[in-house]
Amino acid sequence: MKVALAQCNYIVGDITGNSKLILEYVEKAATGGSDLVIFSELAICGYPPLDLLERGSFVESCIEGIHEIAANISAETGVIVGGPEFNSNEEGKLLFNSAWFLLNGKVQQTVRKSLLPTYDIFDEYRYFEPNRQFDILEFRGNKIALTICEDLWDDQPAENRFSRSRLYTRHPLEEMMKFNPDFVVNIAASPFAAGRMEIKKQIFSKKATKHHLPVLMVNQVGANTELIFEGGSLAVAADGSIYKQLALFEEDFAILDTEELIADGAGTKEGEAAEGSGTGERLGAGKSDITDENGYKEKVAGQTTVRATDNRIALINDGLALGVRDYFSKSGFRKATLGLSGGIDSAVTLAIAVQALGNKHLHVLLMPSQYSSDHSISDSEKMARNLQVSYDIIPIRDIFDLYRKALQPVFGDRQEDIAEENIQSRIRGTLLMGLSNKLGHILLNTSNKSETAVGYGTLYGDMAGGLSVLGDVYKVDVYALANYINRDREIIPQNIIDKPPSAELRPDQKDADSLPEYEILDSILELYIGKQWPEEQIAREGFEPDLVKKVIRMVNMSEYKRYQTPPILRISSKAFGVGRRIPIVGRY
Amino acid sequence: MKVALAQCNYIVGDITGNSKLILEYVEKAATGGSDLVIFSELAICGYPPLDLLERGSFVESCIEGIHEIAANISAETGVIVGGPEFNSNEEGKLLFNSAWFLLNGKVQQTVRKSLLPTYDIFDEYRYFEPNRQFDILEFRGNKIALTICEDLWDDQPAENRFSRSRLYTRHPLEEMMKFNPDFVVNIAASPFAAGRMEIKKQIFSKKATKHHLPVLMVNQVGANTELIFEGGSLAVAADGSIYKQLALFEEDFAILDTEELIADGAGTKEGEAAEGSGTGERLGAGKSDITDENGYKEKVAGQTTVRATDNRIALINDGLALGVRDYFSKSGFRKATLGLSGGIDSAVTLAIAVQALGNKHLHVLLMPSQYSSDHSISDSEKMARNLQVSYDIIPIRDIFDLYRKALQPVFGDRQEDIAEENIQSRIRGTLLMGLSNKLGHILLNTSNKSETAVGYGTLYGDMAGGLSVLGDVYKVDVYALANYINRDREIIPQNIIDKPPSAELRPDQKDADSLPEYEILDSILELYIGKQWPEEQIAREGFEPDLVKKVIRMVNMSEYKRYQTPPILRISSKAFGVGRRIPIVGRY
Repeated sequence: MKVALAQCNYIVGDITGNSKLILEYVEKAATGGSDLVIFSELAICGYPPLDLLERGSFVESCIEGIHEIAANISAETGVIVGGPEFNSNEEGKLLFNSAWFLLNGKVQQTVRKSLLPTYDIFDEYRYFEPNRQFDILEFRGNKIALTICEDLWDDQPAENRFSRSRLYTRHPLEEMMKFNPDFVVNIAASPFAAGRMEIKKQIFSKKATKHHLPVLMVNQVGANTELIFEGGSLAVAADGSIYKQLALFEEDFAILDTEELIADGAGTKEGEAAEGSGTGERLGAGKSDITDENGYKEKVAGQTTVRATDNRIALINDGLALGVRDYFSKSGFRKATLGLSGGIDSAVTLAIAVQALGNKHLHVLLMPSQYSSDHSISDSEKMARNLQVSYDIIPIRDIFDLYRKALQPVFGDRQEDIAEENIQSRIRGTLLMGLSNKLGHILLNTSNKSETAVGYGTLYGDMAGGLSVLGDVYKVDVYALANYINRDREIIPQNIIDKPPSAELRPDQKDADSLPEYEILDSILELYIGKQWPEEQIAREGFEPDLVKKVIRMVNMSEYKRYQTPPILRISSKAFGVGRRIPIVGRY
Repeated sequence: MKVALAQCNYIVGDITGNSKLILEYVEKAATGGSDLVIFSELAICGYPPLDLLERGSFVESCIEGIHEIAANISAETGVIVGGPEFNSNEEGKLLFNSAWFLLNGKVQQTVRKSLLPTYDIFDEYRYFEPNRQFDILEFRGNKIALTICEDLWDDQPAENRFSRSRLYTRHPLEEMMKFNPDFVVNIAASPFAAGRMEIKKQIFSKKATKHHLPVLMVNQVGANTELIFEGGSLAVAADGSIYKQLALFEEDFAILDTEELIADGAGTKEGEAAEGSGTGERLGAGKSDITDENGYKEKVAGQTTVRATDNRIALINDGLALGVRDYFSKSGFRKATLGLSGGIDSAVTLAIAVQALGNKHLHVLLMPSQYSSDHSISDSEKMARNLQVSYDIIPIRDIFDLYRKALQPVFGDRQEDIAEENIQSRIRGTLLMGLSNKLGHILLNTSNKSETAVGYGTLYGDMAGGLSVLGDVYKVDVYALANYINRDREIIPQNIIDKPPSAELRPDQKDADSLPEYEILDSILELYIGKQWPEEQIAREGFEPDLVKKVIRMVNMSEYKRYQTPPILRISSKAFGVGRRIPIVGRY
């Protein structure tokens, strides 16, 4: 059977636009002689639709859209497309998260999602009733085990006692095996996290191997607010080898013959398209263990290439660029601004923004104060020139002095402290937002994950912006991104990379005055935020116990600040934002 | 059997403090000769603990805390206390949301929550596995049907096709009826919303009547970040009448004899304590329909008093005061600031803050610009004097002029527009945050729900603050609050209430220039945000279709602003914040 995988970039809520896109790809599949074309989970409305699903009229429009697609396809091509479905049972949640099978101008069948991820950024049980009755899709002599995303994630290995909380009491594919399927289809909306693609491959490879069945996984691509979907749709052969992987971070399409996925050694075919090469253990036959997300390994088509960190960093870079691009294009904006401070965070943010939007769509501000070093301006100007980005220089000293004068009745003769530092940061925020409001540029926030974590930033100052580009990137990875950006030529002036980080909000200030070295800080943060380890366990890894206590305290004390940060592009499996919900008021 | 209801105010995460509080009330119950004392849902850790529940060490501490309570109680008194429990099954979520029964120095039994609310502000399926096996608690010859909050909310009437989405496929109390229980216990963490207390009474009254069983409901009291819990714990007699209601918005405690709840006409006993009086239909015997949340009716003890709107407003006022008080006390802060503009929002916010914190703990700023009317200062000064609140006056004109000068290279000769208005608002935000940072006062945000809804506010300007007091209060209710605050004497100068609302950010600006009358605006907003009606349905209520379209567009376009607002004290069943999740980027 000839099956087309259609990896598309949907806009949340745009039923008309998404339908049009789907029909274009159906046409392409039909032209290519496909029997079946597969679209991703909730394709009709884009993922995640969030509380739009609570609006009956919205769901009705989705269903109308699907029926309209059905009415407009040729009789030869079957279509699997994700969309919400009303639950007609008297009780239970109102909706199912369904895969709709369309043929001959009509909706033929729906298959409903059984496992509803409700953790991290996922809230599917908020909207959907889980499926409990299992069925098979029969089409042109093939029996298709049709599953939706999490349905195949039922046996993630337990890293520890607590990660077990993601497991389910049902096993959809096991249930479907009684129908003796010919292959497995998985429609997905599975977001990007660095190192996650490898885990996805291994999960689907294991499923294929276990049941000796091909698995076709079609993922969404594109970013919707903070969530980046990398695409990377997969055709996995019955022996577990990767037969085909679709592009990362862009729309892609492929037609393949499921017969070829059943033959042993099918996976070697991909060798042609594989990037990189090397020798190593063959992926497949279920032998590979799931690798740790942070130890990124790129494995392709029967060969394993252990890549250096820069591949992980390249993926983060491209993921962030897609995140910025889609945030703008899907909101109808084209132009961005940011404050270029002479530090590494704003430099990396600018480079990514230029990759995403083009240098003509950036206009940045350099806003020196009396505490700014000379190089902060010269480095910034060099950076802007390197990328041919226009800029203005607006010194903030006079405004700062006037604020201090105005606040004299309140401040009295109290010593200068963090209050004055924050005023400088808020002056910059106000100038940038002034530019944003006047010229229609969206302000990009330049804070990184390390400083966001410990509260080393000013609310309404450097924490302002429409979108945070680096808010899920630890400082050590910001440096790695800078080096990656400079891989061919010096875009970020080397001095920006080499100089010690400083907020320059008081004379001779250095980050190192208040914070530990970033290598140590980031490691502690990842154990506390990413792995949710308790203080004692982190200290047992060899960190200074007092330092661990201090860092954890800083994280806990700044929850209130993070509540008000812009959406943060998510590149890890635990980012600040909607996927992490910690009480602001509390004692813990 | 003598049962004590212990309605306590817990701090989220403070296992030591909460344990101490629980033990104090156990002692009180024992002294009063109680057989049993009941605490609320997740009492050990406070509700909602959110993702603290994902930390194994946190859950272990909760369980240790419960065992320690058990070890410290006298042999005579049984204790029911809410807390998380590990799920020892191989599969499924890691935790149960349980009621722990303690006696004779030990944990005797746990009963697990079956219905896990996962809508609006609730995310319980994120953490908990639902119970599927039903059991009864037997103690001193009584069979107790022990349920947890939502377990008794299984048959909320369907307002329309879409509200059905809250219903469940299981019915815990029906299942427990096979054990022939003597009474029902419900431990709850059920947040406040205006008019909601009446619905709660009716839900429990209906359950009591249906099974002819007494129902004892113990709710949490106190505010945790944005959620206010009103307490109002209930003893409902077997005939459905309200035998006893504990205090609203404060800790309370009562001991009662379950025998008295079984006799017919038990409810009349409450007459002694009932506030207000009147004649009317008797509540109970399941005859009452659920009233609409907005049509608030106060019904007590066999008598019905239909109160005017001012009771609803009084509850909102006291709920907000509790919300402010607990936000400060539980974070270890005592002092607040805000910008007093001469408008009604900041005036009402100040009055509530003074009620919550005391006038000595407020210091406010008056920040006139060249566009401020004379009365904005004179009214504000009068207001501050009325409440004996200290203030400083800081004119912003010079700073504003300097910003405009600084931004001249960017703005060029473009016309004045919203950019200049926002700069004024951000200057005020910066001054207030300067005071906050220097003196340790938390800035209270003064935006109301109407302007927050339509985006009529400046991000990092008047949208700044640690806590939004009125962000869930529509403008019409802000006026009602003002009149309520002035019920005995003029606290808010009448001119503040009478003058047309204006942001005073340009000459002669009035809210009415950009917005419809608030009565109309608020009605449209409530239908769109509260009831989630589509545009056409709202227009069919008699509103100008173009106006409805415009208002909805304003709401949709300002999702990005609301993403960055402070936590908003919740007083309705659909507030902005964690309980409402709308895509920022999208087309809908």
